[in-house]
Amino acid sequence: MPFIRNTWYAAAWSKEITRQMLARTIANEKIVFYRTEAGGVAAIEDRCPHRFVPLHLGRLEGDIVECAYHGLCFDPSGACTLNPHGDGKIPRAARVKSYKVVEKYNVAWLWFGEAELADEGLIADFSIMTDPRFCTVSSYLHVRAGYQLISDNLLDLSHGQYIHPMFKNAEGPPHFEPEKNPSDNEVWARFSRPNQYPNKYFQMLGYPADQRGDHRNFMRWSTPSLLLLDVGMTGVGRPVEEGLSIPTSHLLTPETDLTTHYFWAMSRDFRQDEVALSEELLRVGVAVFDDEDKPVIEAQQIAIDTSELMALNPVLLQTDGPAVRARRIVDAKLQAER
Amino acid sequence: MPFIRNTWYAAAWSKEITRQMLARTIANEKIVFYRTEAGGVAAIEDRCPHRFVPLHLGRLEGDIVECAYHGLCFDPSGACTLNPHGDGKIPRAARVKSYKVVEKYNVAWLWFGEAELADEGLIADFSIMTDPRFCTVSSYLHVRAGYQLISDNLLDLSHGQYIHPMFKNAEGPPHFEPEKNPSDNEVWARFSRPNQYPNKYFQMLGYPADQRGDHRNFMRWSTPSLLLLDVGMTGVGRPVEEGLSIPTSHLLTPETDLTTHYFWAMSRDFRQDEVALSEELLRVGVAVFDDEDKPVIEAQQIAIDTSELMALNPVLLQTDGPAVRARRIVDAKLQAER
Amino acid sequence: MPFIRNTWYAAAWSKEITRQMLARTIANEKIVFYRTEAGGVAAIEDRCPHRFVPLHLGRLEGDIVECAYHGLCFDPSGACTLNPHGDGKIPRAARVKSYKVVEKYNVAWLWFGEAELADEGLIADFSIMTDPRFCTVSSYLHVRAGYQLISDNLLDLSHGQYIHPMFKNAEGPPHFEPEKNPSDNEVWARFSRPNQYPNKYFQMLGYPADQRGDHRNFMRWSTPSLLLLDVGMTGVGRPVEEGLSIPTSHLLTPETDLTTHYFWAMSRDFRQDEVALSEELLRVGVAVFDDEDKPVIEAQQIAIDTSELMALNPVLLQTDGPAVRARRIVDAKLQAER
Repeated sequence: MPFIRNTWYAAAWSKEITRQMLARTIANEKIVFYRTEAGGVAAIEDRCPHRFVPLHLGRLEGDIVECAYHGLCFDPSGACTLNPHGDGKIPRAARVKSYKVVEKYNVAWLWFGEAELADEGLIADFSIMTDPRFCTVSSYLHVRAGYQLISDNLLDLSHGQYIHPMFKNAEGPPHFEPEKNPSDNEVWARFSRPNQYPNKYFQMLGYPADQRGDHRNFMRWSTPSLLLLDVGMTGVGRPVEEGLSIPTSHLLTPETDLTTHYFWAMSRDFRQDEVALSEELLRVGVAVFDDEDKPVIEAQQIAIDTSELMALNPVLLQTDGPAVRARRIVDAKLQAER
Repeated sequence: MPFIRNTWYAAAWSKEITRQMLARTIANEKIVFYRTEAGGVAAIEDRCPHRFVPLHLGRLEGDIVECAYHGLCFDPSGACTLNPHGDGKIPRAARVKSYKVVEKYNVAWLWFGEAELADEGLIADFSIMTDPRFCTVSSYLHVRAGYQLISDNLLDLSHGQYIHPMFKNAEGPPHFEPEKNPSDNEVWARFSRPNQYPNKYFQMLGYPADQRGDHRNFMRWSTPSLLLLDVGMTGVGRPVEEGLSIPTSHLLTPETDLTTHYFWAMSRDFRQDEVALSEELLRVGVAVFDDEDKPVIEAQQIAIDTSELMALNPVLLQTDGPAVRARRIVDAKLQAER
Repeated sequence: MPFIRNTWYAAAWSKEITRQMLARTIANEKIVFYRTEAGGVAAIEDRCPHRFVPLHLGRLEGDIVECAYHGLCFDPSGACTLNPHGDGKIPRAARVKSYKVVEKYNVAWLWFGEAELADEGLIADFSIMTDPRFCTVSSYLHVRAGYQLISDNLLDLSHGQYIHPMFKNAEGPPHFEPEKNPSDNEVWARFSRPNQYPNKYFQMLGYPADQRGDHRNFMRWSTPSLLLLDVGMTGVGRPVEEGLSIPTSHLLTPETDLTTHYFWAMSRDFRQDEVALSEELLRVGVAVFDDEDKPVIEAQQIAIDTSELMALNPVLLQTDGPAVRARRIVDAKLQAER
């Protein structure tokens, strides 16, 4: 399965990249990440060109990785810096791929494509995650399903009514508002519940259980599969700023064709200093994403096996519009890169 | 691997089908079974046509299954009865397969073939299992081997001498009597031990250890792979009715090409009210079928891998006659359906 | 993957072959080994030609194996000696392969090739293992990697510096001396450390930690993949006989394309009667081969998947010379047998 090359992938939370080497497969490429002594991020191919042993099994010494097997050394540029054997000559072919990585929004972003196109400005805006007015908690889960099945999930939030007891409303599934002027790069999926009582989630966040309000779930999708949910609840007909907002980031990164790295974060502009609430939100996120979404999405992947979902002619509902559009944008970019 | 379509498959014991949905794969098709409020059996495709999530993960409400993911609803005919989203229109393609099932002999029988040929009268006679003069115990095991390897096992009962200590006789393997007038639909495999001391099984059932008798094992095979063993022991030269009879049913249903649902039952017309004997028989059945036959048959499947047994040119003995004939009947029916 | 036919494979340690049947796959062929009543080694195909059940599941009675399933009997020549059913006739096709095995150096050697070429004299010299002047300890490990990846490992002992703390020297990797007059059947890989302090291994064996000496690691490779390491340490410039010698045998036998039987032995001509030292050497061997080499070699196999190593164009260092030559000899022999 091809993946878009000229786009930024969320490779890791910044805090995951330390002086301990991190082996991670991104879009079928095996990569070892580590923090350089100067504090930057090194990302090189996780395979020694000599005998193909994974480099992350070796030792990190300064900015240099020494292969576990015969001690060849590589620097962050992928160049071999030492052959400790025989005449010590370094063969011309003794080098590994090096990857461009930038850090932004507490995420290490990886670029597979053409170097001259690697513009940091192309990273979708997730400044909410580092906005000092917000308190952000974040986590990671691994899903045995292709990344597009997860973005399908996030672009059709009507599923919350069925899968997530915490997000269920007595008045049934949310209202879906089809997008009017779709762009070529972004997709919006807007679900709302005007004038309803709060679900258990908003009650937990402090919205009075006996008070109606306007509840919004506006999801923004960007390539390759980065989603930001503007979710909040406010008094009926009142401006958004008055109510609770808890924007949630979902960064989906293909590991392989059929597995995905799922980074998520919840940011809030209220009760920022309450550690107990932060812990509760992490607990809720795990309950919802790990324990409720993941089993269903993985069952779906097993059901479709290695087929591409759209090739199986799924029945389409109105609420599938955004997910279908996101897939079309991916297809168009893949087509353009061919 | 193709399976016969116009035949009845044992899908489940009737008692397995309840208000709790039962997901079971039959002949490579994923099916969800449940009991309707009126007491019938519903059997529909276990895959929502919208996003392909297994329906058994959802909820059963009355006779309606609600998909776990986005709440589409299906009735026992496979029709979609509710789309809770957007304009609520039900797409024409929103339906799942429904399967014809009848209950007979405490078994739910499933028909894959042409509807007009689904004649209940074609189900092989297993009335022994519901005959009030008999007490019947039943069980189920799952075998990682193709169903024909198991019917081969049951059609050559000479294996009892080697695999099953309880069925072993001091005088060696049983006498095999080749079939004289074979039919096109049934196979008989008759093994007998005239004038011998009882094996441990008949001793357990009450036949005196020091008394010779005539022991019979007459196996009847019907399509697709339903076997009834007339097994009993009586005094030398005495009529069958005088002795012990414990007819045993073996219903083999392909799950996939290489795995099988194995339903078995033992019926007896003596000591019917002895609960301890019923429990002992279940224990013996598990010891014999699960612990002795199954490992050998699974080792056989591993040895032949995905090959068809006959394509490997096995050495054939006289006692293989019935198994070979059963395979030919299956092949002929498959050929006819092509 | 083809394997050389006209060569001797180490099938088992002699002590492994007893009256208990041993099932072992060698070069993709499933074989059952057992000791005959006369004390010889029988090796026959581990698959009954009747229903393909592995023969090792059956019973050994005298020199005869009785199949677990229907009691066909086979002798060490592979001939069927009994059909206990029906007319008792033995079908002409009822026979299994029999393999030529000889015992030498406490090893059972198996020959796949042409019978008339099966010359015991072709077995590479491992007389060290039965030399009464030496005390030999031996063991076995199973490796999930092709046998050539392991012989690569053993032919480039510079890896000891990186993988094995016990074999590491303060002065860096050993000196490698390229072979001058390579033969067509053997490969030598000579590594040495003249005038160095002993590593932990030699300290353990009794070489004084504060005394410099000459340390040699001379590896001899023979087909198909049999390696003998002449390893020892002696005073600087002193003759080998004065110092410690602990020649180590490594017999690599392909189980399948991607798995290997690894038999190893350490022989010593000093402190032969010290049981504690024998136990310590076995412990060291397990630490080094099982816990240090095996994970790296298996990671290498996973990295190259089912590819042939050389087809992936590995970077070659001077120290790879012997491994490359051994592979070429194998390729030439395979080519000649085609």
